[in-house]
Amino acid sequence: MLNHMVEQQVSPLDRVFGALSDPTRRAMLRRLAGGTRTVGELAEPFDMSFAAAAKHVKVLEEAGLLRRTIEGRTHRCRIEAGPLGQADRWLAYYERFWSLRLDNLERALVRHSRKRSRK
Amino acid sequence: MLNHMVEQQVSPLDRVFGALSDPTRRAMLRRLAGGTRTVGELAEPFDMSFAAAAKHVKVLEEAGLLRRTIEGRTHRCRIEAGPLGQADRWLAYYERFWSLRLDNLERALVRHSRKRSRK
Repeated sequence: MLNHMVEQQVSPLDRVFGALSDPTRRAMLRRLAGGTRTVGELAEPFDMSFAAAAKHVKVLEEAGLLRRTIEGRTHRCRIEAGPLGQADRWLAYYERFWSLRLDNLERALVRHSRKRSRK
Repeated sequence: MLNHMVEQQVSPLDRVFGALSDPTRRAMLRRLAGGTRTVGELAEPFDMSFAAAAKHVKVLEEAGLLRRTIEGRTHRCRIEAGPLGQADRWLAYYERFWSLRLDNLERALVRHSRKRSRK
């Protein structure tokens, strides 16, 4: 019951950011950006069991980042980037902060090079 | 020792996406976007103990998203959005996928409205 309630409180954005917090899952998404892959193909480059890799695939699927098609024993996976767009829109709100940092850095560099040219 | 090794394998991007996977922490960042806040002020809107809120603040701090200044007993926090920029650059690689989805949607809408105007 408690588990069920906790489950319901998890928002799509929680799942997407959670899925992206692991380097194996980010690497799997990068491979899927190149085209459809079977779960076996996705697991291949990683030094882990098939079962462990399949769990990562499942997390990506539950976050809506991966669509699976089952043909007999073969599970084909493709990327579903829509939720990444949602994550990107969330981040866009903060863009002014990191742009500001870059502006400050640029100004500091300009000041520095002016000082040097005066010497 | 094992903990230490596991600790070292966690990349900055893992921590940033992990920090963003929780709605309380995302809401805290949103408040910090409005200016400096004490830990007490950050905790205030949430139905949780001060200790629980302080843990969320700590996760944001460890992800490099929050800078804390201690003045006596007051901990002042401000946003450090740089790592969000790093997350945004990671997501930018996938932009073509969700743009593509929007293009397809747009084409479908145009087709739909053409059909309607022919009737």
